[in-house]
Amino acid sequence: MGRTVYVNGEWVDETDAKISVFDRGFLFADAVYEVTSVLQGRLIDFPGHLARLERSLRALDMEMPLPAEEFLALHRAIVARNGLEEGLIYLQVSRGAADRDFHYPENVPQTVVMFTQEKALVEAPAAERGIRVITLPDLRWKRRDIKTVQLLYPSMGKMAAQAAGADDAWLVEEDGTVTEGTSNNAWIVTAGGKIVTRQLSHDILPGITRAAIMRLAEAEGLTVEERPFTPEEAKAAEEAFITSASTFVHPVIAIDEVPVGSGRPGPLARKLRGLYIEEALASAL
Amino acid sequence: MGRTVYVNGEWVDETDAKISVFDRGFLFADAVYEVTSVLQGRLIDFPGHLARLERSLRALDMEMPLPAEEFLALHRAIVARNGLEEGLIYLQVSRGAADRDFHYPENVPQTVVMFTQEKALVEAPAAERGIRVITLPDLRWKRRDIKTVQLLYPSMGKMAAQAAGADDAWLVEEDGTVTEGTSNNAWIVTAGGKIVTRQLSHDILPGITRAAIMRLAEAEGLTVEERPFTPEEAKAAEEAFITSASTFVHPVIAIDEVPVGSGRPGPLARKLRGLYIEEALASAL
Repeated sequence: MGRTVYVNGEWVDETDAKISVFDRGFLFADAVYEVTSVLQGRLIDFPGHLARLERSLRALDMEMPLPAEEFLALHRAIVARNGLEEGLIYLQVSRGAADRDFHYPENVPQTVVMFTQEKALVEAPAAERGIRVITLPDLRWKRRDIKTVQLLYPSMGKMAAQAAGADDAWLVEEDGTVTEGTSNNAWIVTAGGKIVTRQLSHDILPGITRAAIMRLAEAEGLTVEERPFTPEEAKAAEEAFITSASTFVHPVIAIDEVPVGSGRPGPLARKLRGLYIEEALASAL
Repeated sequence: MGRTVYVNGEWVDETDAKISVFDRGFLFADAVYEVTSVLQGRLIDFPGHLARLERSLRALDMEMPLPAEEFLALHRAIVARNGLEEGLIYLQVSRGAADRDFHYPENVPQTVVMFTQEKALVEAPAAERGIRVITLPDLRWKRRDIKTVQLLYPSMGKMAAQAAGADDAWLVEEDGTVTEGTSNNAWIVTAGGKIVTRQLSHDILPGITRAAIMRLAEAEGLTVEERPFTPEEAKAAEEAFITSASTFVHPVIAIDEVPVGSGRPGPLARKLRGLYIEEALASAL
């Protein structure tokens, strides 16, 4: 027996967790997802993830398949059934299964899948030592604000980073500006101590952790500038870091093999990470 | 009992045709596909589809999961098992199932799925009456030459066309040129009688039917120009048409509600369609 997985209203062993080959998540990448972190057995930033799920679904003319309170109950149930103390809950909603046709099917129930992954999030080695990123052209589709499963290019990016001896990749738009990391938002700290991250648009995912870090930084009296920056500006920055639901904040210590700042995790990234974890635990559900 | 479907070496009823929720085709759109037409119970342009499948797989650092002769045998077997006279065979290969991680898994068997769809291809109503297309910005990723299942935007495009009372959409790059249709290659015939279609690159799918039509047109002494064209040029063209494995050739009679040429299916599209079907039947496997 492995993990207990949720598939369309049923709790099944992970080896029995299956969907139809006609599922549009499989045939058309017609599906969206969310990843919620779990600390001390409780859900981090859950309302934010649920709100973004609904936003993604509506952008694709889909409805929420279940009421919010039922999603909350399911998230709590999957934590309990798997005895999850620290890690991730993955939730995917697809348009459902129907004979293959580019046109959306009518009157087909959506597919809802959830599973857990145990993972050390607070004592993450990458948070201590920092990560090294490479830059790659951003070849993704132009609606990255919708959290779809069209993740092949981010996956290719992680592999390219690994092949280059790095941990991750930052993606660079044709105009020469950084959009975001393969699965996280990208930030820098300028010589003047300002914190810079790209403004929200169709170009990037509206990160739940990004929003929290902005709020926390401003509450600390720090200035946050929402604007694009280039890899060159990032390489010359005091600090750089990424944010996401599964990393919280990880310092970036090198970009294309150029050390950022001291080449060691910076104080502001560390501070924001600490503030985030503190608040996350206080507001966990 | 419905269709008999192939899933990883087994023949199952379509209602039992399932894959793991951990399949990377479902979680990451990490999968490629081919659609082969069947006429008179035989396979159309099969070597071309198999060669393109291998090209797509290699572009994503995957191998062919089965030898070519086994794929041929499976295609013939699925035709026989389903008594398919005319229609489509859908084949999808994913990187396989593994716990969710952007990095490619190692030593995981690929997933191979095949199913059939009955469809009138030769006596297709759209071939007789022609289709109406709208134009939409091409928001897809930048490696459209790889035939991946990242088909959400093409699917959204078909729905946008339907909502506009049209049959399909042609996608327009930021530079104002047409790339291709949502699931087909786009062609025009100039006032001088030249046939124009976009040159191969990362921007478009290397259509199997496209290649055949180019060859057939040149054998007829027609001039084929491979270059980009704009929606404006297309609206002013003598004729326009699309090609794909499932449509062969369908005339385009209107673009953004502007009639193309006479506003009726053009003679060259009709001629090329006839030549294609004739050759396809002669070389079917």
